[in-house]
Amino acid sequence: MADLMIDSQRFRNRFDRFSEIGATEDGGVNRPALSNANKQARDKLVKWLQEAGLDVTIDKMGNIFARREGTKPEADPVLIGSHIDSQYNGGRFDGVVGVLGALELIETLNDRDTKTQRPIEVVAWSNEEGVRFQPDMLGSGVYTGVFDLEYAYNRKDDEGNRFEDELKRIGYKGDRPCAPDDYHCYFELHVEQGPYLDEAGLPIGVVEGVFGFSWLEGTFEGQANHAGPTPMDMRYDALVPVADVITAVRRITSTEGTDLVGTVGSVDIWPNAINVIPEQVEFTIDFRSYDNDVVDAAVKQIRDEVAWAAKREDVEYTLEEVMRVEANTFSERCIDTVKAAAERLGCEYATLPSGAGHDANYLNQITETGMIFVPSVDGISHRESEYTEWEDIVLGTELLLRATMEQADVNST
Amino acid sequence: MADLMIDSQRFRNRFDRFSEIGATEDGGVNRPALSNANKQARDKLVKWLQEAGLDVTIDKMGNIFARREGTKPEADPVLIGSHIDSQYNGGRFDGVVGVLGALELIETLNDRDTKTQRPIEVVAWSNEEGVRFQPDMLGSGVYTGVFDLEYAYNRKDDEGNRFEDELKRIGYKGDRPCAPDDYHCYFELHVEQGPYLDEAGLPIGVVEGVFGFSWLEGTFEGQANHAGPTPMDMRYDALVPVADVITAVRRITSTEGTDLVGTVGSVDIWPNAINVIPEQVEFTIDFRSYDNDVVDAAVKQIRDEVAWAAKREDVEYTLEEVMRVEANTFSERCIDTVKAAAERLGCEYATLPSGAGHDANYLNQITETGMIFVPSVDGISHRESEYTEWEDIVLGTELLLRATMEQADVNST
Repeated sequence: MADLMIDSQRFRNRFDRFSEIGATEDGGVNRPALSNANKQARDKLVKWLQEAGLDVTIDKMGNIFARREGTKPEADPVLIGSHIDSQYNGGRFDGVVGVLGALELIETLNDRDTKTQRPIEVVAWSNEEGVRFQPDMLGSGVYTGVFDLEYAYNRKDDEGNRFEDELKRIGYKGDRPCAPDDYHCYFELHVEQGPYLDEAGLPIGVVEGVFGFSWLEGTFEGQANHAGPTPMDMRYDALVPVADVITAVRRITSTEGTDLVGTVGSVDIWPNAINVIPEQVEFTIDFRSYDNDVVDAAVKQIRDEVAWAAKREDVEYTLEEVMRVEANTFSERCIDTVKAAAERLGCEYATLPSGAGHDANYLNQITETGMIFVPSVDGISHRESEYTEWEDIVLGTELLLRATMEQADVNST
Repeated sequence: MADLMIDSQRFRNRFDRFSEIGATEDGGVNRPALSNANKQARDKLVKWLQEAGLDVTIDKMGNIFARREGTKPEADPVLIGSHIDSQYNGGRFDGVVGVLGALELIETLNDRDTKTQRPIEVVAWSNEEGVRFQPDMLGSGVYTGVFDLEYAYNRKDDEGNRFEDELKRIGYKGDRPCAPDDYHCYFELHVEQGPYLDEAGLPIGVVEGVFGFSWLEGTFEGQANHAGPTPMDMRYDALVPVADVITAVRRITSTEGTDLVGTVGSVDIWPNAINVIPEQVEFTIDFRSYDNDVVDAAVKQIRDEVAWAAKREDVEYTLEEVMRVEANTFSERCIDTVKAAAERLGCEYATLPSGAGHDANYLNQITETGMIFVPSVDGISHRESEYTEWEDIVLGTELLLRATMEQADVNST
């Protein structure tokens, strides 16, 4: 393997210090978007970016940009980064690896006084996780024109706090317009969040694209009644058809496509009491595949099943597709750049699609985009026990460095 | 039909004024135990009881007793009443009919200057509904020795408020010991909360006993993971086996006994997010029958099913029976007294068991007990749309009056 360039120890020290912000007892971090811990993490990141000599600007969505000038300042910059918000009690690697990796890349260029023709910008996107404010990838979504700024500002958390108010509260409502700039390309380094690389024993994934997905929200509405004196044949139980839906999602994933995954992740019952027949139930369904037709077929099947389940129990239902994102294929130029860098570095890799959504999905709509994955041990994600070997993170960052240098038209001094 | 004795208009005025306390927009009341609205209802009731000349005492559980002296003060009194706490956004008839009906009975005796040999006591039991503090029937449960006073005092609501502290806060922690007194018998007038009488077109139900029930609480514990990149064959989804349990409860009720009812009323998922595989799910099961063996068989079947469902998904599980109440047969003397009164009054009735639990269950352990049901329109219960025709309430109260007079050894002045 070729010589490494980044300073693994410096990077590791920074990563460990960053992991202390919002740290949980079980090794994770609790830094949901625009929380106090998220503000602390942002403050720390901005300080480090400025100490590395970068020009930091904050846009109206709180996305943090940091620019290292190129020898041709007018050339379209190379953008690199990810996000630093977390799930509630999430893992410490998710997102952070790509942002601190980008910072380490800048430090490495600085150490060697390496100039690039194109400017390089580091970015940390706001509210990627979407756990406190829905939908997810809100910062990059507004930036790329998928969502309106006003729509995003009016998103509310469970306590009714508006996104804009919380952004102001933590001091990250910036002046920079939140609208697409001209970039040469975008690279994002991220943990896989799935088991493929770990199972295959490979340290690097070159991401060819991202699964399409459909998010459905449904309700069944029956009649609440006392669980004791109401005979079985006079019940309109809103939970019984949900059981049919959960079972049907499993069946559909086994018949509609080999990469199709389906999940009922959320169920909310009213009144949710041991001795009252459920009157109203809200549920969600998440279907994903790299093949858009497979997602379509799954959605069609579950629509039929929801209707039949409601009919069997004689309850009302609604089912709405609240989000549909088509499968996304990344830029061939970016994919080839990463592959070439991996081959020069002599490291094995797999080419694979991502099952999870990423800010890179949206960036791919405005610029040439590529992603680099490093393995998630046991495929664990969105939990405190999420883990990636440090040597894999270093390797991923080396690849990010080489791909970025390649696209930024390096001229060594 | 024999002449009516009670003052329907006075009773109705009182009932309507009482319904204004904690009234909801959709015609129900929101007066959970020891809430401010429950305090207001208690204050109003106590005022009315005192205005009717009764001697009011409050026991250590906040149960309200009001005594009308008999001509033989040393004789065991006849106890009549029910409860005035409600479900969250519950109906305005549930419980209240039996308490205000008992008050109207007293007023009728007063109007006519009717003396009884035995004293008559009106009671309103604390926390019958069990929605704010579990378990239900807590006031009558402590009174009859089913629960310890300290156990009850330490029950907490969802905000962590202790029962005792809330009881003090609303000023209803009384001095009277909460322990069984000697009573001649107990009568409770209540809405049916089921559809039987309404369907049969009968105004009165003479309750022969109460269904036994089993309450089970279970958990499945799997692994949270991202809903996108986690292949179906690597999932440990804690919600999938719950679907099997819900379906199994339906199947079991169709095979184990004709009167068996089974309900999964509550499901709580963690983390409950659209894009995260459920890690932990808590669920409840409620099985009821008038035949204890049928309940036992249902519990046995569902235990097997929970174990198998966990095994299929390879997740951990727990299942605990948190409450088991045997089916309860009421006093023949009380049943016969109510039936004889109905026959004298010339009204049709059905003899039926109650599917719902009542304070009368516990009272039946310390004294001869009987219950009178009036119809619930469409069997609707525990909802704001709960309704009973006023003429049925009047008829039920007339029966309560006659049964009480019979047992209290009436001597007209």
